[in-house]
Amino acid sequence: MPLTMNREVFITCAVTGSGATQDRSPHVPRSPQQIAESAIAAAKAGAAVVHCHVRDPETGKPSRDLALYREVTERIRDSNTDVVLNLTAGMGGDIVFGDVENPFPTREGTDMVGATERVAHVAQCLPEICTLDCGTMNFAEADYVMTNTPGMLTAMGSMMTKLGVKPEIEAFDTGHLWYAKQLVADGVLESPALVQLCMGVPWGAPDDLNTFMAMVNNVPEDWHFSGFGLGRNQMAYVAASVLAGGNVRVGLEDNLWLDKGVLAENWQLVERAGSIIENMGARVIGPAEVREKLGLSKRAPK
Amino acid sequence: MPLTMNREVFITCAVTGSGATQDRSPHVPRSPQQIAESAIAAAKAGAAVVHCHVRDPETGKPSRDLALYREVTERIRDSNTDVVLNLTAGMGGDIVFGDVENPFPTREGTDMVGATERVAHVAQCLPEICTLDCGTMNFAEADYVMTNTPGMLTAMGSMMTKLGVKPEIEAFDTGHLWYAKQLVADGVLESPALVQLCMGVPWGAPDDLNTFMAMVNNVPEDWHFSGFGLGRNQMAYVAASVLAGGNVRVGLEDNLWLDKGVLAENWQLVERAGSIIENMGARVIGPAEVREKLGLSKRAPK
Amino acid sequence: MPLTMNREVFITCAVTGSGATQDRSPHVPRSPQQIAESAIAAAKAGAAVVHCHVRDPETGKPSRDLALYREVTERIRDSNTDVVLNLTAGMGGDIVFGDVENPFPTREGTDMVGATERVAHVAQCLPEICTLDCGTMNFAEADYVMTNTPGMLTAMGSMMTKLGVKPEIEAFDTGHLWYAKQLVADGVLESPALVQLCMGVPWGAPDDLNTFMAMVNNVPEDWHFSGFGLGRNQMAYVAASVLAGGNVRVGLEDNLWLDKGVLAENWQLVERAGSIIENMGARVIGPAEVREKLGLSKRAPK
Amino acid sequence: MPLTMNREVFITCAVTGSGATQDRSPHVPRSPQQIAESAIAAAKAGAAVVHCHVRDPETGKPSRDLALYREVTERIRDSNTDVVLNLTAGMGGDIVFGDVENPFPTREGTDMVGATERVAHVAQCLPEICTLDCGTMNFAEADYVMTNTPGMLTAMGSMMTKLGVKPEIEAFDTGHLWYAKQLVADGVLESPALVQLCMGVPWGAPDDLNTFMAMVNNVPEDWHFSGFGLGRNQMAYVAASVLAGGNVRVGLEDNLWLDKGVLAENWQLVERAGSIIENMGARVIGPAEVREKLGLSKRAPK
Repeated sequence: MPLTMNREVFITCAVTGSGATQDRSPHVPRSPQQIAESAIAAAKAGAAVVHCHVRDPETGKPSRDLALYREVTERIRDSNTDVVLNLTAGMGGDIVFGDVENPFPTREGTDMVGATERVAHVAQCLPEICTLDCGTMNFAEADYVMTNTPGMLTAMGSMMTKLGVKPEIEAFDTGHLWYAKQLVADGVLESPALVQLCMGVPWGAPDDLNTFMAMVNNVPEDWHFSGFGLGRNQMAYVAASVLAGGNVRVGLEDNLWLDKGVLAENWQLVERAGSIIENMGARVIGPAEVREKLGLSKRAPK
Repeated sequence: MPLTMNREVFITCAVTGSGATQDRSPHVPRSPQQIAESAIAAAKAGAAVVHCHVRDPETGKPSRDLALYREVTERIRDSNTDVVLNLTAGMGGDIVFGDVENPFPTREGTDMVGATERVAHVAQCLPEICTLDCGTMNFAEADYVMTNTPGMLTAMGSMMTKLGVKPEIEAFDTGHLWYAKQLVADGVLESPALVQLCMGVPWGAPDDLNTFMAMVNNVPEDWHFSGFGLGRNQMAYVAASVLAGGNVRVGLEDNLWLDKGVLAENWQLVERAGSIIENMGARVIGPAEVREKLGLSKRAPK
Repeated sequence: MPLTMNREVFITCAVTGSGATQDRSPHVPRSPQQIAESAIAAAKAGAAVVHCHVRDPETGKPSRDLALYREVTERIRDSNTDVVLNLTAGMGGDIVFGDVENPFPTREGTDMVGATERVAHVAQCLPEICTLDCGTMNFAEADYVMTNTPGMLTAMGSMMTKLGVKPEIEAFDTGHLWYAKQLVADGVLESPALVQLCMGVPWGAPDDLNTFMAMVNNVPEDWHFSGFGLGRNQMAYVAASVLAGGNVRVGLEDNLWLDKGVLAENWQLVERAGSIIENMGARVIGPAEVREKLGLSKRAPK
Repeated sequence: MPLTMNREVFITCAVTGSGATQDRSPHVPRSPQQIAESAIAAAKAGAAVVHCHVRDPETGKPSRDLALYREVTERIRDSNTDVVLNLTAGMGGDIVFGDVENPFPTREGTDMVGATERVAHVAQCLPEICTLDCGTMNFAEADYVMTNTPGMLTAMGSMMTKLGVKPEIEAFDTGHLWYAKQLVADGVLESPALVQLCMGVPWGAPDDLNTFMAMVNNVPEDWHFSGFGLGRNQMAYVAASVLAGGNVRVGLEDNLWLDKGVLAENWQLVERAGSIIENMGARVIGPAEVREKLGLSKRAPK
């Protein structure tokens, strides 16, 4: 069996995320205008897909405000730069428990809403892709739980399918990928599905190659996948994912640094990823080719 | 590198669990007496360790009643059969959300209590081992979340360490094992730790060999580990775990069947596991050797 | 992805081999009568396939004598026990070099003959299966080279295909499996092919699980495979191969011992393998089912 | 377990090899002067080590002529560019058999000489490193056998150790790596050893990631390793080897092409490898750091 690296790779830029990173780097975009501009710059640098969250323009805190999503969407759509828009649907499933002796009532930071509300911006903005975080887990540094139960995922997934918006399944551990296959088996999601293997996010799958390969080996052959590594391994994972046959994701959501001591801008991370991909002997593909591969169709918002 | 199979294997029998299995097999023990008797029979058949939950003697529903734990403990300790006692501490972290449009208030089945209450029976019964489910996830068929946040795990782990009860870390996915290592790094748990790799529990790690090997490769070399597969792969996983260098767990908590159409008793599953282990060329070790390997000391309850 | 263990497993018994084992155990059969009787006993114990070499009846040294192969074949065919006959075609490719300063001339033990001569007994006896050692390597303890060049393998493989005898490709390392796929791509061997993964034979692939799994992952999905481990890991590999989706091989060619200090007979090794397989939850299949799976047809010799 | 990529990587440039490539690219150096110049240019582009064969200056055919090795050595040593010199000791073990019906006598192309003659140029030139091809196999496209028996490897390895020249073990399949560990266990080679994992050379280990990772997992933890992939996967393997914790090898011995339709020069391949390594977040180290890591000391020839 020869190396089955991907020779036609698309780059997703995750431009801002929901993490408390906005105070750690001036390049993390906050306002819809900043987010759109950073996304467009990333697209110009080679990103075929831009994955966007929105933030309160003042505080930089993560938001689910429809108007903000709408503005980001319109600014990107109205620009002269073609790019596939991918909006998060990861928000609205956050629980922060009281304390170890009294888990309830939950604390500030908890944001648990219903399925309809969680996909309201997707229904309104009709991006070509939106994410679906395919499980429940202790998430990252903070002591909170990212909550996406089977029932919630079934409801949200069905809504996305009906809307004609392609879900990008985010698998943060091996069990999330397993459940994603169940969603396809259940007819909730369409096959071939699109999955993002999210490596090295505490406390999900660690980013060692054995774990990554075990996940890759469990992606059905006709699905499309992408992979990313958090933090300092972001660029290493560009190489890893291409080698394993996948696409790549970079951006300030996952990593703030270009080099030791040098804070990155999104376009710089995209450019660097592109350099690795091309030097490895693969080709970076653009939004039109991505649409064809994934069966997406560009639409205007409602 | 030669095959590094384990040639001195201990068997844990998980005698009853908390699943709704009590109505699917007459052999699932319910009362403390039944649980103790089934555990003792398993020990006689070769189990060095018995892992016990307790149930309401009437309904068979899972319980956290201290008196029930106490009775199981005393019955096992007072028997003439030596065995290492392992009590679950997995209960008290269950959430069943309202519905997909209104996650809160939570529904019946929710049982979220504080750390002290979750280990109260451990403090009282002083088993040699108790379990520590090392993460949060959508669990099994039912639409509920097994909730163990980093804060909760730190609190519970510290209590166990202070009590001198060895935690058996249960890792249901790769991220749980990662966090277990963090607990050791944080000084909450002592090294070498003991970990159970729980394979094939929906929606945790699937039980394919690549995923299992990725987890095994992430167990620190000086730790002790065991592995099990759910359901029909229980006996296959006896072989898999021995091959990978680990110990094994069988029992009615994980699988009800001996053969197609034949419901099992715990001692039969243990006997069969022992046959596989010995036919593979390894030796089944008893409770005294387990205590020495794991640094356990047998104690009377408070 | 659930564990994809094989649930319908056939056992091959490799009854005598060509190694210098005949003086290390009285149970290693030497004469055609002994070999046939040992094979038949193995079949009665559950082996669906018997893999036979022949030996000089006096000295026990490996032989390529046609009359000996013929006698073994007839004795097995004329018995009342049905079994699939698999004859080695591994002999006639041995080089023992002179010494490190003068590799040529070669030394005693060298037995390099042409393709036609190497398959003469196959042409005459028409077994249902014969082996094809798919590469060149330093072999086992002795300082000799097992030599099977691409040209030789193409010639031998073509002859086997024309004779209607199914080649069992023996892959002693990852490159041998790679070349086997080339032989199928070249039209020399028919697909689906049958391959034996030979683990732990010095100096081929070591028998650790990572290496085994890497080889298994490179077996085309529609091929049939079996695996074995040399020496003390023979029974461990019964479990490993079933877990990985394959069939198993045991017998005195690969291992002389039943237990520590107890020399084995072939039928005992088969019986033990059968016990492991069935305890793991799989079924041992017989010669008729093997013929159907592999597309073999039983024939009388010329 | 976090990704254990190598963050201090050395690049070896294999400048010319012994393959029949000299007529397929004008950039394959033939004369000692061309080889030295190409090696020096590679060193200037970032290669800490240059791996050299010699060729007949007229025909370009591979040669074992001492004077040619001497000239290459001197030209590189006398240049102002510091680089670690690595000379092949792979030649003199070639057999081309007669034909499939008459393997002997061997044909033109056969070059089997004794151990002393195979390392004569090493003894004379005293490079810091020389290669030791650690096994016997069908090699590449041509129907010939690369022959290195255990006896030959023990003799050659002992000579290298006595000369104080570090052997770079070349492992073309998993069994070669296994035997390399035996050579260390036997005291023939010193630990920590240096090994080159040669992936994708027909008919050795294929270059898929599972096979590569199985080999990497079998490299003792304190050894140093490098890896390369043949042909179009050369640059992909730069990434793979760094990700797996190793160093890298590029150069015209293994791959002639820079891009589709563009023949490469050695320095260009080194430069591209360096770009990948640095973009991945690792540092390319120079000859002084390599000497320290590997315990080499630069010497003048006899």
